[in-house]
Amino acid sequence: MAIGVWLVGARGSVACTVSAGAAAVAAGVAETTGLVTELPALAGAALPAMGELVIGGHDVIEVPLRKRAEDLAHGGVLPTAALAAVNDDLDRVDARIRPGVTSDQDERLADTLARLRADLDEFRAANDLESVVVINVASTEAQVAPHPAQRSLDDLRRAIDRDQRVLPPSSCYAHAALSAGYGYIDFTPSTGSRLPALHELATTTGAVHAGRDGKTGETLLKSALAPMFADRHLRVRSWAATNLLGGGDGLALTDPGALAAKVSSKAATLGAILSDEPDAPVHIHYLEDLGEWKTSWDHISFEGFLGTRMRLQFTWEGCDSALAAPLVIDLARLAGAAQRHGARGPLPELAFFFKDPDGTTEHRLSRQFDRLCHWATTLPSRP
Amino acid sequence: MAIGVWLVGARGSVACTVSAGAAAVAAGVAETTGLVTELPALAGAALPAMGELVIGGHDVIEVPLRKRAEDLAHGGVLPTAALAAVNDDLDRVDARIRPGVTSDQDERLADTLARLRADLDEFRAANDLESVVVINVASTEAQVAPHPAQRSLDDLRRAIDRDQRVLPPSSCYAHAALSAGYGYIDFTPSTGSRLPALHELATTTGAVHAGRDGKTGETLLKSALAPMFADRHLRVRSWAATNLLGGGDGLALTDPGALAAKVSSKAATLGAILSDEPDAPVHIHYLEDLGEWKTSWDHISFEGFLGTRMRLQFTWEGCDSALAAPLVIDLARLAGAAQRHGARGPLPELAFFFKDPDGTTEHRLSRQFDRLCHWATTLPSRP
Amino acid sequence: MAIGVWLVGARGSVACTVSAGAAAVAAGVAETTGLVTELPALAGAALPAMGELVIGGHDVIEVPLRKRAEDLAHGGVLPTAALAAVNDDLDRVDARIRPGVTSDQDERLADTLARLRADLDEFRAANDLESVVVINVASTEAQVAPHPAQRSLDDLRRAIDRDQRVLPPSSCYAHAALSAGYGYIDFTPSTGSRLPALHELATTTGAVHAGRDGKTGETLLKSALAPMFADRHLRVRSWAATNLLGGGDGLALTDPGALAAKVSSKAATLGAILSDEPDAPVHIHYLEDLGEWKTSWDHISFEGFLGTRMRLQFTWEGCDSALAAPLVIDLARLAGAAQRHGARGPLPELAFFFKDPDGTTEHRLSRQFDRLCHWATTLPSRP
Amino acid sequence: MAIGVWLVGARGSVACTVSAGAAAVAAGVAETTGLVTELPALAGAALPAMGELVIGGHDVIEVPLRKRAEDLAHGGVLPTAALAAVNDDLDRVDARIRPGVTSDQDERLADTLARLRADLDEFRAANDLESVVVINVASTEAQVAPHPAQRSLDDLRRAIDRDQRVLPPSSCYAHAALSAGYGYIDFTPSTGSRLPALHELATTTGAVHAGRDGKTGETLLKSALAPMFADRHLRVRSWAATNLLGGGDGLALTDPGALAAKVSSKAATLGAILSDEPDAPVHIHYLEDLGEWKTSWDHISFEGFLGTRMRLQFTWEGCDSALAAPLVIDLARLAGAAQRHGARGPLPELAFFFKDPDGTTEHRLSRQFDRLCHWATTLPSRP
Repeated sequence: MAIGVWLVGARGSVACTVSAGAAAVAAGVAETTGLVTELPALAGAALPAMGELVIGGHDVIEVPLRKRAEDLAHGGVLPTAALAAVNDDLDRVDARIRPGVTSDQDERLADTLARLRADLDEFRAANDLESVVVINVASTEAQVAPHPAQRSLDDLRRAIDRDQRVLPPSSCYAHAALSAGYGYIDFTPSTGSRLPALHELATTTGAVHAGRDGKTGETLLKSALAPMFADRHLRVRSWAATNLLGGGDGLALTDPGALAAKVSSKAATLGAILSDEPDAPVHIHYLEDLGEWKTSWDHISFEGFLGTRMRLQFTWEGCDSALAAPLVIDLARLAGAAQRHGARGPLPELAFFFKDPDGTTEHRLSRQFDRLCHWATTLPSRP
Repeated sequence: MAIGVWLVGARGSVACTVSAGAAAVAAGVAETTGLVTELPALAGAALPAMGELVIGGHDVIEVPLRKRAEDLAHGGVLPTAALAAVNDDLDRVDARIRPGVTSDQDERLADTLARLRADLDEFRAANDLESVVVINVASTEAQVAPHPAQRSLDDLRRAIDRDQRVLPPSSCYAHAALSAGYGYIDFTPSTGSRLPALHELATTTGAVHAGRDGKTGETLLKSALAPMFADRHLRVRSWAATNLLGGGDGLALTDPGALAAKVSSKAATLGAILSDEPDAPVHIHYLEDLGEWKTSWDHISFEGFLGTRMRLQFTWEGCDSALAAPLVIDLARLAGAAQRHGARGPLPELAFFFKDPDGTTEHRLSRQFDRLCHWATTLPSRP
Repeated sequence: MAIGVWLVGARGSVACTVSAGAAAVAAGVAETTGLVTELPALAGAALPAMGELVIGGHDVIEVPLRKRAEDLAHGGVLPTAALAAVNDDLDRVDARIRPGVTSDQDERLADTLARLRADLDEFRAANDLESVVVINVASTEAQVAPHPAQRSLDDLRRAIDRDQRVLPPSSCYAHAALSAGYGYIDFTPSTGSRLPALHELATTTGAVHAGRDGKTGETLLKSALAPMFADRHLRVRSWAATNLLGGGDGLALTDPGALAAKVSSKAATLGAILSDEPDAPVHIHYLEDLGEWKTSWDHISFEGFLGTRMRLQFTWEGCDSALAAPLVIDLARLAGAAQRHGARGPLPELAFFFKDPDGTTEHRLSRQFDRLCHWATTLPSRP
Repeated sequence: MAIGVWLVGARGSVACTVSAGAAAVAAGVAETTGLVTELPALAGAALPAMGELVIGGHDVIEVPLRKRAEDLAHGGVLPTAALAAVNDDLDRVDARIRPGVTSDQDERLADTLARLRADLDEFRAANDLESVVVINVASTEAQVAPHPAQRSLDDLRRAIDRDQRVLPPSSCYAHAALSAGYGYIDFTPSTGSRLPALHELATTTGAVHAGRDGKTGETLLKSALAPMFADRHLRVRSWAATNLLGGGDGLALTDPGALAAKVSSKAATLGAILSDEPDAPVHIHYLEDLGEWKTSWDHISFEGFLGTRMRLQFTWEGCDSALAAPLVIDLARLAGAAQRHGARGPLPELAFFFKDPDGTTEHRLSRQFDRLCHWATTLPSRP
């Protein structure tokens, strides 16, 4: 039986690259570069095959995936040559995309939650799926205002009954997934399942969850480099990060609330690895000209033996969708395997993929990778 | 009983920083920043205390350490304030420095080897030392010309009898150390103990040895960053490294033979970590203006999902002596502990410190650190 | 007769470097590096000699210059060796510093203006000065709130009579200088003389003025590099500038109003040189760790023949005081010469020194330099 | 009447971009970005129109331009969309390309020179051209071995009679051009017309000539930035340049002789602008992975007021053909205009385009641009 992958933001750049890329790899017209689950180190893991993934999703926009893919190919993100081979696959995904939810819609909250849940159940039934993993790859939301109703499942239920709008869209999707026992993974810094009431819901239904905020660029480098300073006993004095983002993600982050959410999720890494508590500001700026690309500049000032001050600087020029999409596919396969083998609740073994992981404070990339490999390769074979 | 630390190149910048720094830390006027052996992760290891180290060495130049230290303080490498506190210690080390060996001296090889060995034995006796660790921190030598006499201990002995000059200076020091069963560590890319005849000698006497070429800058970064690309399945296409070096080390590397030795030791890391076999040239250029500093620029081109090409660039501005000196102290303590606990032959547990380690092909920094910590913290307490 | 140089912010880093540096150069213990007026190209200009400058100033803090200079020497800005030679000079300047004005003081505005003016007149009389040039090197102020009384000299006089606080501190100093016919130069992005009422005042008294915001780092580079793109017909698409500042200047810019003033003065350059109207955000962030230093990273994306996109990036690591101080000395000499030769009003010939120059829209560095040289070398010899 | 543009290396990347680009601009399917002669500052100059240029050339390879253009489009150098519009133009240029000359061919030197000359004369006659400008855009040659026969035209003639091979290929092309009074421009660091015997030939026939080595990247930046340091009296201590080149040009420079020629032409700029005589090494390395692109990193260490040391670093990522091709078109138009208006000998007014210009020591970019504009806009209108 196949695994359902339900993408929130299914018509965005990342999701379109997921759909096109999964099809291209399955069709043999693209290599597996970027897919962690295709590494030799994970060759022995009992994971769903690429061809066992069925993709659907929610979105609030209506541009066809075929059109989106053309735009991405024009921008150098998708190889033009591969498009012809995957257009039919994109059409099939398109047919499975349902209207999403916005922060200002009229619909009663209870109706929204029921509608989203019904979409998931219908997706499962229609495609005869073993299980479903909901993955949020939509634009970053503003940090949610705290509300007492978020504190427990009972309080939340009462608020829903009274139609109090206490859940941001990402949490509505999380609610729909968790209430059905489906997996929920947040690849963004949005709130998603990060509310006590939703954690309680996950505990009740046993749904797996992981997140948050995919680690694809500057923070990935931090988690690779900071252990070097720590293990060499070099004292990091300051680590100033500047991120220039184009595209939809960059534009979304011009909203101060969304920016705060993003900066917050990016801040966890250094604090967890370095004992020096360096001054480590993270600046994020929108630069339309970059399109689907992002560039970051990190300036690291550190102290060595006898107080000598030295410097490391790096610039990273990456394509957001090309970096994120394979990890989304990896997460679908890994969370699908976890469900298949009876896992429940947070999946700290997937910390390798996130800026601010659920269920662990381990941020060192190598240790996260070792844990992932150990876990995945010791999963029992499919029952 | 104390451990003897015998520095080859004892009046150079690195050695002077070792002597001044060890004294400053022991006197409490400098922090332990940069000393791996002072990390909490190694707090439980049964290592010789900083105060148990007695420093001596060989050199071919005669400038007093006090003067050398003033120059380094002027160049910003040593803190002026600490000098007053350590001048007496520097004088004591000075008094233990003996004339070294050059590649073109008149002395018969047999006499050279005997003289160097006698210096070590006298150092041990005079200071009532438990053991001695010889550490080469002299300028890089040219790669040695191969000679049949280097192939076995018997052949070597016959060549020595005939006064064939088949050993470069670094190997003379290694011969003196290993023949006495003392430890030999090469912090440079010079030949040192890397000859079959000398390996045989080490096996015979049970001397510990480690090397080669301390990993302090651009290669350190490679060993931290390359696993990130490997573990994320990102294909590194090219990794072009440019190193600008001032100071004596930079000048020594204007010799083509020495440059070849250095480039060779730097080349091992990427090949061992990345399966992609990227085009990875290493360029090293002397720039007098940098003085005791070095700057490197690495340009890394890699491929992600669906063949998208991306880039990472970094610049590293480091002070060679400040980076190397604490590691030399660490190596003295760790090799001293190994001797104390009966280790023999190569010490692959010390790979963390080297560009081209003895006895292992593991180049990933985190794994090297884990192995070091495991080994050091499971050494039995002092008998 | 000597020229008086009256520094607003006379105890700050820049002013202290001006006072120490001018004394050191005059005493022959420092070279003239950084002083534009000491270039061969200006050798023929009839300028006041370095030894003809007498320095005084206003400040609101009381730390002695001697102490300030020690701190700067400790931070690597002033050479320790030169301090001994200039301490007496610093004491003499110290004795000429008078209390400044803050934005929230009790004193009536009319009294403030009269007091500042009296300080200047007394400075002139006490030192038998030919003329006085007031130069603002204090921390950046917030952009001033517009007020109708700033629109004309009559309106301003009436507001002063009513004690309406319509002038920010920088404009109080400017008022004091201009009312006496002394020169006023703003080396900061503060309001200073940039109010219609004060321009009218300058016209009335014939005082020379120039500014604003000394061009010392990232903007200097823009004015050197942007003409290259323009003259080669390369289309700049975006020019994203990130500035990390430590020190008092960086801290002052954490105030949003001050930041807005700074960003505004920095924005003029590219717009004036490039016809492409690129997206050119300027970001400024405080990073305490940098101390007296500043680092900027500029990311420039441009288009060449047939639309090919290319990139230039640079990082600039500069010491603010070392960059600014010699220009302040230059400006004092040049404005002194202008006064001596009967100049009145704005001095567009000094645009070379400013981010946002008075009286001209020429921002190309080479053209600014040519105009400066032509003007200075054609000044008649001293009458 | 039209102007003939004869490209040596007519099937290379630069030449193909010239042919395709000139056609695309003339056809209105590409903008004029990158063409200096299309700047408003040169709008009043009496230059041949784009449509008046007829392109032909020599090459030793036979791949059709159409195919070459496809490869360039695939590599992102030419816009795919424009190709269809220019394929017929490329075919027409193709038909005008004649076999070139290699350094090891059998043909007698006299025959080679006669053949090349005949090709030029036939090109002129067949296309009814007013004049011809030969522009060398072939791969860099090794520096030529000095030979007494290169010292005067008489000596050279005798050597040709004896079939002594004293002229490298670039000089054969130069001889053919100059002997006919056609213009010769060297866009490479090859020898070309830089031999006393050929200067004498140019004087005899009155042929215009210019060169050498187009200034398109790192040296262009030097000529824009070095005046900033000079005019601000900042002392450049060292300026270390590292160039990574892919493509045919990079490969050609792996030959030590060609590398020496290139490094030599790049070295002129800083020495001519800076009086400090900084240590300014230029390193050039081949990196196949870069393809048609080049990346350079410059590390500049300078000293400001009171000896404070500061740093500027930049990286430049450019596409060689996109940078060079429009300048080749500019040079054809400008040299064509010079011929039309009776100029003879070296054209120092074109120094703006070259690393090592003929007839002037002015290397400051802005001054070069001013001279170009003044000259071009004061050319008399066509007689």
